[in-house]
Amino acid sequence: MYAEIITIGDEILIGQIVDTNSAFISRELNKIGVHVYQITSVQDDKEHILDALNGVHDKVSVIIVTGGLGPTKDDITKHTFCDFFEDTLIEDKNVVNNILELFKKYQLNLPMPSNLQQAMVPSQSKVLMNQHGTAPGMWMEKNGKVFISLPGVPYEMRHIMQDEVLPRVSEKFSRSYIYHKTLLTYGLGESAVADRISEWEDALPEEIKLAYLPSLGKVRLRLSSSGKDKKSIIESVDKQMEKLQHLLSDIEVGFEDETSISQQINKMLTAQKKFLSVAESCTGGKIAAEIIQNPGVSSSFKGGVVPYDTSMKIKVLGIPEALIKKYNVVSLEVAESMAVNCCRLFDSEYSIATTGIAGPTKGDGVDEVGTVCIAIASPRGVFSEKFQFGNDRFRVIEKASNKAFEMLRKEILKN
Amino acid sequence: MYAEIITIGDEILIGQIVDTNSAFISRELNKIGVHVYQITSVQDDKEHILDALNGVHDKVSVIIVTGGLGPTKDDITKHTFCDFFEDTLIEDKNVVNNILELFKKYQLNLPMPSNLQQAMVPSQSKVLMNQHGTAPGMWMEKNGKVFISLPGVPYEMRHIMQDEVLPRVSEKFSRSYIYHKTLLTYGLGESAVADRISEWEDALPEEIKLAYLPSLGKVRLRLSSSGKDKKSIIESVDKQMEKLQHLLSDIEVGFEDETSISQQINKMLTAQKKFLSVAESCTGGKIAAEIIQNPGVSSSFKGGVVPYDTSMKIKVLGIPEALIKKYNVVSLEVAESMAVNCCRLFDSEYSIATTGIAGPTKGDGVDEVGTVCIAIASPRGVFSEKFQFGNDRFRVIEKASNKAFEMLRKEILKN
Repeated sequence: MYAEIITIGDEILIGQIVDTNSAFISRELNKIGVHVYQITSVQDDKEHILDALNGVHDKVSVIIVTGGLGPTKDDITKHTFCDFFEDTLIEDKNVVNNILELFKKYQLNLPMPSNLQQAMVPSQSKVLMNQHGTAPGMWMEKNGKVFISLPGVPYEMRHIMQDEVLPRVSEKFSRSYIYHKTLLTYGLGESAVADRISEWEDALPEEIKLAYLPSLGKVRLRLSSSGKDKKSIIESVDKQMEKLQHLLSDIEVGFEDETSISQQINKMLTAQKKFLSVAESCTGGKIAAEIIQNPGVSSSFKGGVVPYDTSMKIKVLGIPEALIKKYNVVSLEVAESMAVNCCRLFDSEYSIATTGIAGPTKGDGVDEVGTVCIAIASPRGVFSEKFQFGNDRFRVIEKASNKAFEMLRKEILKN
Repeated sequence: MYAEIITIGDEILIGQIVDTNSAFISRELNKIGVHVYQITSVQDDKEHILDALNGVHDKVSVIIVTGGLGPTKDDITKHTFCDFFEDTLIEDKNVVNNILELFKKYQLNLPMPSNLQQAMVPSQSKVLMNQHGTAPGMWMEKNGKVFISLPGVPYEMRHIMQDEVLPRVSEKFSRSYIYHKTLLTYGLGESAVADRISEWEDALPEEIKLAYLPSLGKVRLRLSSSGKDKKSIIESVDKQMEKLQHLLSDIEVGFEDETSISQQINKMLTAQKKFLSVAESCTGGKIAAEIIQNPGVSSSFKGGVVPYDTSMKIKVLGIPEALIKKYNVVSLEVAESMAVNCCRLFDSEYSIATTGIAGPTKGDGVDEVGTVCIAIASPRGVFSEKFQFGNDRFRVIEKASNKAFEMLRKEILKN
């Protein structure tokens, strides 16, 4: 069973925003056994939207349209649906009440007239209530296909998808089962991975598809399969995944859908009853920010310091000035000293320390832009490595952060 | 003049990755006067890619295809291009040399056979050299349209776009001028903004288009226009923008394309010769990480501390334990004490402090999940506010970070 996603909005076509809605919708549809055939982004233009609605592939049963439901004049989805379905707008009392309640709950001034216009919906539509915003979703049917319109605000869209769309689609259509499993590897390039596993890849059963997803020091390997028999699909993918894990045992760090590397670290440290802290100079808080995305992380994370200015490495972290003068602020010696003092300051057994030159200028460093020293302190001691991550500031920070997690994870596994 | 973007990859259609390439390509094309008509994401499937290539709108002159050029077996773009153009693959000597040089430069082992396959290109194609990876871009022409194939790795794609694609498209096609200007506002909802400016909006000249882009406490307002006469387009948009700024003077924080709010803060502080530091509990390093994305930020940023665990607020930041006991760790009093001590610890005149309950559990807090206290210290003193940001951990952190920047900016303007 197939779906198609149509996202409406000039902001997507001029590159002002990145469309994250489609990825969410695709993931959720996959979970209930619906394949996404195509994603199409079109302009805030009635003719263009109608072209897209008329142009969906024959095999597609569900069309999900996002965007263009706001209270302002550039929002035209409802009027376009009226054209497409030869329908007219009527006021929905439940939506009016929902809007009034939202304004009351958030103690806002009385609803503006433009908000109340959002209660106007095509007369043939089934309203999908929006608990978190004033624009309702809509469900309409034509020629055996279901057309669903959702607001473009990600948070509102996600809730309507989960509360209204997925249960209704599951009920209306019989679907097969779709299974993806993705192995996460660190430290080896895409071609080298491909060459190492080519014999296994050639022998993969036809119904299992392999995909490579390389990015900044990581390669993800995804196996996918679908069909009616859930149990046999899972078994055959898992069996192949086991072989793959064995072939890549030195570089794999587990499955992506289960846990991110920072979640894994949290889990392992919690089990060891040990704590982590971070001292981030060139990564400037990025590692900490990634760690605290995980709920419940206080069981393994004490906190961190961002001694961005060299003087703060001395004052806040207590790095000896002489050490910095002797070895330079971007050095293995300073990184290790940062890691050790970080453990002391935060009463933690493990720590990550980063110091480097993210660029575009060298700051207090002497090495080339892109040089980063990373140190890990653990109950076994402290160790460090020096890297060259290129001359793009954003990528240097990102790669340093990925590498630090990789080094820490390896070290925790040894304890 | 119009372009269309086709992105290839099952990873997009199953929601495993978010397609950021399209937004970049759209922005770059807009800058040279090319409108993007549509973005289509299709599967790693020859028939589907051919459908998309055959289905581009008549008025589109340039089609940019990304993805499917890797060294592995799931990469089929080149073979599909050969079908579409009735062409065959030949080895390109320059690409072979480029691959050999890349392997030498990064001191990798000898190129794998799969990498050398990447030097095979359709015989009619003009090769677009890739300085940062092994997959070359390709430029082909058919029925007056240009079809360009680029690798899907964002960094490689971006460089080929800038070094090869944009200059060639500029040379081949005459284009009009496209101008966007976006005003950033904080603190008022989309409908309230719309109602306040509706008279001005109704009187907008027809050739200027207004769009609203709401997100987590911010609303962006974009004016767009295009045509042959660059000077008059800029003048008429700027004139309207001036009126808009006047109508929204209490909530606008400047133009988006020029500078982000963290860049503005850096600029203002550098001009004041003052420094900033941060003490982030519930935002956990997110504010610092956003600040250090800006190159040259060492002229106004000393660093920060992430006292995630309550005990670290006491030990590292010196918050009196009695204060925490009396008012609770999530309180205006503790936030203000964190801000003041942060300035002292980091020798800065300004600071941001956050303490809150991001959820899903309450941790050491007593208030509801979503409660966040933010304090700003400045040469004028310290002040704080308490907020309720809802029950979604990710959104609580994001909203708290946005609000902190908004509060700090307002305070800096008063000094």
